[in-house]
Amino acid sequence: MTNKLKIINDPVHGFIKIPYEILFDAIEHPIFQRLRRISQTGLLNLIFPGATHTRFHHALGAMHLMFTALENLKLKCIEISKEEEKSALLAILLHDIGHGPFSHALENILIEDWHHEKLSLLLMEQLNVEFDGELSMAIEMFKGKYHRKFFNQLVSSQIDVDRLDYLKRDSFFSGVSEGNVNAQRIISMMNVSNDELVIDVKGIYSIENYLTARMFMYWQVYFHKTASLAEHFLVKILQRAKFLCAEGIDLPASDNLKYFLNRSQHSKANAEDIERFTELDDYDVLLSIKKWTKNSDFLLSYYCKAIINRDFPKSIISSKPFTKEFIEDKIEKINLQFNIENGKELVGEIKRTLLPYDAENQPIFLLQKNGEKVKLEDSENQILSAFIMGENTKYILYFPRDIA
Amino acid sequence: MTNKLKIINDPVHGFIKIPYEILFDAIEHPIFQRLRRISQTGLLNLIFPGATHTRFHHALGAMHLMFTALENLKLKCIEISKEEEKSALLAILLHDIGHGPFSHALENILIEDWHHEKLSLLLMEQLNVEFDGELSMAIEMFKGKYHRKFFNQLVSSQIDVDRLDYLKRDSFFSGVSEGNVNAQRIISMMNVSNDELVIDVKGIYSIENYLTARMFMYWQVYFHKTASLAEHFLVKILQRAKFLCAEGIDLPASDNLKYFLNRSQHSKANAEDIERFTELDDYDVLLSIKKWTKNSDFLLSYYCKAIINRDFPKSIISSKPFTKEFIEDKIEKINLQFNIENGKELVGEIKRTLLPYDAENQPIFLLQKNGEKVKLEDSENQILSAFIMGENTKYILYFPRDIA
Amino acid sequence: MTNKLKIINDPVHGFIKIPYEILFDAIEHPIFQRLRRISQTGLLNLIFPGATHTRFHHALGAMHLMFTALENLKLKCIEISKEEEKSALLAILLHDIGHGPFSHALENILIEDWHHEKLSLLLMEQLNVEFDGELSMAIEMFKGKYHRKFFNQLVSSQIDVDRLDYLKRDSFFSGVSEGNVNAQRIISMMNVSNDELVIDVKGIYSIENYLTARMFMYWQVYFHKTASLAEHFLVKILQRAKFLCAEGIDLPASDNLKYFLNRSQHSKANAEDIERFTELDDYDVLLSIKKWTKNSDFLLSYYCKAIINRDFPKSIISSKPFTKEFIEDKIEKINLQFNIENGKELVGEIKRTLLPYDAENQPIFLLQKNGEKVKLEDSENQILSAFIMGENTKYILYFPRDIA
Amino acid sequence: MTNKLKIINDPVHGFIKIPYEILFDAIEHPIFQRLRRISQTGLLNLIFPGATHTRFHHALGAMHLMFTALENLKLKCIEISKEEEKSALLAILLHDIGHGPFSHALENILIEDWHHEKLSLLLMEQLNVEFDGELSMAIEMFKGKYHRKFFNQLVSSQIDVDRLDYLKRDSFFSGVSEGNVNAQRIISMMNVSNDELVIDVKGIYSIENYLTARMFMYWQVYFHKTASLAEHFLVKILQRAKFLCAEGIDLPASDNLKYFLNRSQHSKANAEDIERFTELDDYDVLLSIKKWTKNSDFLLSYYCKAIINRDFPKSIISSKPFTKEFIEDKIEKINLQFNIENGKELVGEIKRTLLPYDAENQPIFLLQKNGEKVKLEDSENQILSAFIMGENTKYILYFPRDIA
Repeated sequence: MTNKLKIINDPVHGFIKIPYEILFDAIEHPIFQRLRRISQTGLLNLIFPGATHTRFHHALGAMHLMFTALENLKLKCIEISKEEEKSALLAILLHDIGHGPFSHALENILIEDWHHEKLSLLLMEQLNVEFDGELSMAIEMFKGKYHRKFFNQLVSSQIDVDRLDYLKRDSFFSGVSEGNVNAQRIISMMNVSNDELVIDVKGIYSIENYLTARMFMYWQVYFHKTASLAEHFLVKILQRAKFLCAEGIDLPASDNLKYFLNRSQHSKANAEDIERFTELDDYDVLLSIKKWTKNSDFLLSYYCKAIINRDFPKSIISSKPFTKEFIEDKIEKINLQFNIENGKELVGEIKRTLLPYDAENQPIFLLQKNGEKVKLEDSENQILSAFIMGENTKYILYFPRDIA
Repeated sequence: MTNKLKIINDPVHGFIKIPYEILFDAIEHPIFQRLRRISQTGLLNLIFPGATHTRFHHALGAMHLMFTALENLKLKCIEISKEEEKSALLAILLHDIGHGPFSHALENILIEDWHHEKLSLLLMEQLNVEFDGELSMAIEMFKGKYHRKFFNQLVSSQIDVDRLDYLKRDSFFSGVSEGNVNAQRIISMMNVSNDELVIDVKGIYSIENYLTARMFMYWQVYFHKTASLAEHFLVKILQRAKFLCAEGIDLPASDNLKYFLNRSQHSKANAEDIERFTELDDYDVLLSIKKWTKNSDFLLSYYCKAIINRDFPKSIISSKPFTKEFIEDKIEKINLQFNIENGKELVGEIKRTLLPYDAENQPIFLLQKNGEKVKLEDSENQILSAFIMGENTKYILYFPRDIA
Repeated sequence: MTNKLKIINDPVHGFIKIPYEILFDAIEHPIFQRLRRISQTGLLNLIFPGATHTRFHHALGAMHLMFTALENLKLKCIEISKEEEKSALLAILLHDIGHGPFSHALENILIEDWHHEKLSLLLMEQLNVEFDGELSMAIEMFKGKYHRKFFNQLVSSQIDVDRLDYLKRDSFFSGVSEGNVNAQRIISMMNVSNDELVIDVKGIYSIENYLTARMFMYWQVYFHKTASLAEHFLVKILQRAKFLCAEGIDLPASDNLKYFLNRSQHSKANAEDIERFTELDDYDVLLSIKKWTKNSDFLLSYYCKAIINRDFPKSIISSKPFTKEFIEDKIEKINLQFNIENGKELVGEIKRTLLPYDAENQPIFLLQKNGEKVKLEDSENQILSAFIMGENTKYILYFPRDIA
Repeated sequence: MTNKLKIINDPVHGFIKIPYEILFDAIEHPIFQRLRRISQTGLLNLIFPGATHTRFHHALGAMHLMFTALENLKLKCIEISKEEEKSALLAILLHDIGHGPFSHALENILIEDWHHEKLSLLLMEQLNVEFDGELSMAIEMFKGKYHRKFFNQLVSSQIDVDRLDYLKRDSFFSGVSEGNVNAQRIISMMNVSNDELVIDVKGIYSIENYLTARMFMYWQVYFHKTASLAEHFLVKILQRAKFLCAEGIDLPASDNLKYFLNRSQHSKANAEDIERFTELDDYDVLLSIKKWTKNSDFLLSYYCKAIINRDFPKSIISSKPFTKEFIEDKIEKINLQFNIENGKELVGEIKRTLLPYDAENQPIFLLQKNGEKVKLEDSENQILSAFIMGENTKYILYFPRDIA
């Protein structure tokens, strides 16, 4: 093992250690290496040019935070076996392995009704065979079947290390310091009560601050109106490409991408689907988009040029839906001005909704000094949580710049 | 203009302002937008996973430092006109516009005898036509023809803002803090004497520190043995691909890449060459490499798999060249073990040379309090410069892991 | 001037330039140099050991942000004359010059009814005589009498550069990243409309984030229960010392401190008061406290030892006042256990109140794209402001550890 | 213990954990708390205003790095017992406990022939009695008597955690990024061979970079000419004060400081000396200096005013000693101009010497892959070490500004 003990540079967390050999082997696997070619935040770099970081790096970062979280819990006298530690690290390392290219935008587009968690599980099971069952406990944890719930909660909950890493990482690379959550502090406030993940009561402001930081990251970054538009166009492009393929038009694309463009939507995913999916990455998609900027289909090239040349239509944002009249008026003007048949395809409304704190489904519990648990929003010292338990929605309307 | 006044987030420098409208127009040009798809440090992210930043961001960052440098010089009572300021910003913004995909590795491979500076100039001249001559002074500065030399020295010298940005940026994204040069301090020590760029004498240690930081970045990062190997293999791949194309084999590739693979090396670059080159980016090259991992040509797929799956041969580094016997012995073993004809293609030596301070060709001058200039290495207070005026060379030998 | 052009290192903002000679002269003045010996956050370093920074550094930092803010406004075509710029820099540089030792705790204790702003103004006027009237416009700005209101608002409002610097600086030195407000971004969103300071509408989330960051800094840092206790004890010490002096007891102290301990409270401040006050700093107070740990007066030494040895009584925090019964019970136990007459002096309640956003007195205005102004809380895109317009109060009760 | 498990905020390292109860008790001890009132870098804040950090914080930071270093060694399969870990943490926590006020300047002045290490040991032994012998192993390690040498080398050698912390911390607080050594990386490269501390060979550039960073910190910060002057004047002040006391003049000072001013130099240190010394801190010294600015002794007040008002004489720096003639000329001018008898006391030469890498006495060993050790300077891949094995000396001459 010693010669496998690697340290990976990470500008976000410093250095990432790989404390078990099997982690190293998992990282070296081509299916994991492929995450190097899948960006963490899709087209966000069109707005925040530093956000070119990858899912590969995020997975390593989340593993690092898991390691830190477990070390901290052990200092608080929570018993964690070597086997549990190794499995928790594997579970978080592989939690995103099912992500495809531009996944948040494109999942369900390439293979209907498949989202990345389903695929992550499937690929973990496949790797488990290769690794002679060494991933079994990790898979239990990932699925929430392991009897000590907090392992799953560290992988997936409102205060999991996945979120802690991606908020901090996305903030770091995008240069939007508002989202720079204090992961180290939140981790040091984590505790375990009856095998459930809780937060020591004195960490209350850190948690409230984290929830608001997350909220601001969504509105300033993830739901940024141009970012939303870019993602929306990405979907439009793939949908249009599938439509054109269905019409019998041969679009240039890599073999694997072509396969999915032509794949019948309603068929059940089979082994070939999975294999080809794991060979697909951002490069397949973006290179095709670049080619399609010159395609003779007006809409396809229109959407593609917006992305490749970063030349988006005008967009406006509102906290209320746009009226039908307002939208119709835009379409009419386009039809007059552009003299095209599908003018209404150039106008669209995008809806973005955020629930800052999902108190109903995933309440955060504070551990009080007397050993009792209290919900964050019920704690007598909370100052913000109670105000962020409802959904917020914004509407973005886009239309060609020339008619503005 | 007001509605063009944009601020771009940059995790390295904070916020980048765009103080002239023409800068904004240049940034929006597709030829410049293309730099978003060209990574700043090529395959370095295989070793430092954070290093996914682009030439686009670097160009903006260097422009920001130029702005800061000129502001500082104005505070020191150096007269700089609006026209000069605008031109200096344009010159640095566009200084790298001629970079192709993986340029440091691939320039001269795609088009023989063309390096990026030649192409940058050509594209700047092309843009100058589009912008009605507004780039003329910038081009003079870029070429070193403008009568006030310091503008060119800020674009290209041992202490230019290009280096300051890329060292700081590469250090930031790779997470190798050793290269985090203090750009702000060096800029604040810059001065102008007889229209030449100089450093105020009290900045002597900052400059020496900068030169050593740069040296360490080269040995720890740019010339890292696996990074060197990755870059070397990239060249091997393109050379092999061109060889196979010349043999009449049809390799899958994007149209533009195919064009260059089949282009006759010794022909003079023509308009089509230029146009196609400006449509090429990392995505064309990397997607082909991914496809070629499955190519029937052993060598081509061998090199490609190393990069795609990050599965490199063993490499060793030395400050002396490896002996012929040592290398022959490796080849013999391969021929025996692998039973292939071109075993010697799997072994190779890479040479890396650095001159930390090029005192002969580009001496750095210190401005003393009495107004006289003195070469850095001749200053009575220098403590390191004199030791880093010679070249350093390291040799890297690689060969398949199995025979190690 | 050139040889006065200084650059001061600041780990928070990088480098601070001093663009006018008179700024340099003001900084060199002994009254300003004295701020080096007055800590910015009083006894906060007892809880956050890094928080040892001084008012001197804060004043320089705020001046730096003012410079940045004015540069930014000029880029937005707001006309600002050299005279105005110089005066605004002077106004912010000197805005805290009237602070005495541990001022937030001790003002009104040493000289009754004097708070630091009153004294700052008085000292600025005194300096104005020395500087031949060069501070006149700065004083107008400081007093809010200058006709362009935004200069005063940059010095003193809910989004002034004073707050931006102290939040960022206190966050930096204390290591509490939650308060690391994005000063650069907020400044870049500042604008001026009808000579009033406003925020460009797209900066709405940055402002909301800033208001919540400030709120968390108060609850996590400034109003931290032990920090509140330390400050409270500081006041108790000085009050007790004055009481003992009034009783005729000679307490060891520096001449200047002794003068204030013996000064009659109700007399009007005279020239000697002012002069002696400007010679007083943290060192006078803390050294006396150290001496008084050995004083024969039980209460005085009790309070002093708590601070010097960082050995505070137990404290509990609540969002409701403690009941009279609860407090009486503590006192009774002390009287029994300690056998002292003034047991009730060892128990106390401290009240801390914060108004996160003072919409009534100092509303923040957003400048919309149509040129109209709208109050932050009335903006359709606001997501938090409306919830933080009310006061929050917490109560801290302290009593000896042994009876807990 | 659980309720003693504390986390201390540190802007340099993030959060500092206190993993053993005895560490917490040691920190709470008044002798340790006193380090809060002793600045880490003396009067350096006169030049770098952020450098107000204390020995208290440094000791905690060094303890944190020790913890990290031991964790890392355990991952490399070096056996370290709980007892050894606890002792190593105690040894580094207390390594500076013997520091007095402005210690680097004033040690040997207050008590002749006593430097802080001697006193640290004495105080550790005193604490060991209070802690019932729990510090015995820590003391062995501190003295270098413990049989596993690397524990002592982590406390005191060219790559000890003391240096790593103070370089990083001083760099952080002063804002001089040149000294921001990569402590985390160096620690991750540490290893143990035959119970000696070594560096893994691949860490060679990190070590060379660290040595040069340290060198630059000395020349830019610690040996900054004004900083050197401030420290020099501090010594002059105490020497003058002792001289005046010996003459029978009663200088105002705190009891403890007065004790040392009047203490006979050549007497052996006794119990009272030690006790009083541990009650002395920067506040005693600086408050006296402030008082003495008004003293009737010209020299004493001259030196004191320079420090309090930051109004230093002119100084020039050179790599060669100043000639006798040059100095005599200055003195003559002073005698003419100032009309004072002791004009030569206003002129002085300060000598500063640094040995960047003490290869002779404390060689750094690299652990090669074959398990053999090689001296840093003999390693074939070293690029700088060989050039920094000799001493560098600079000379600073100061004299009143008016005669310049």
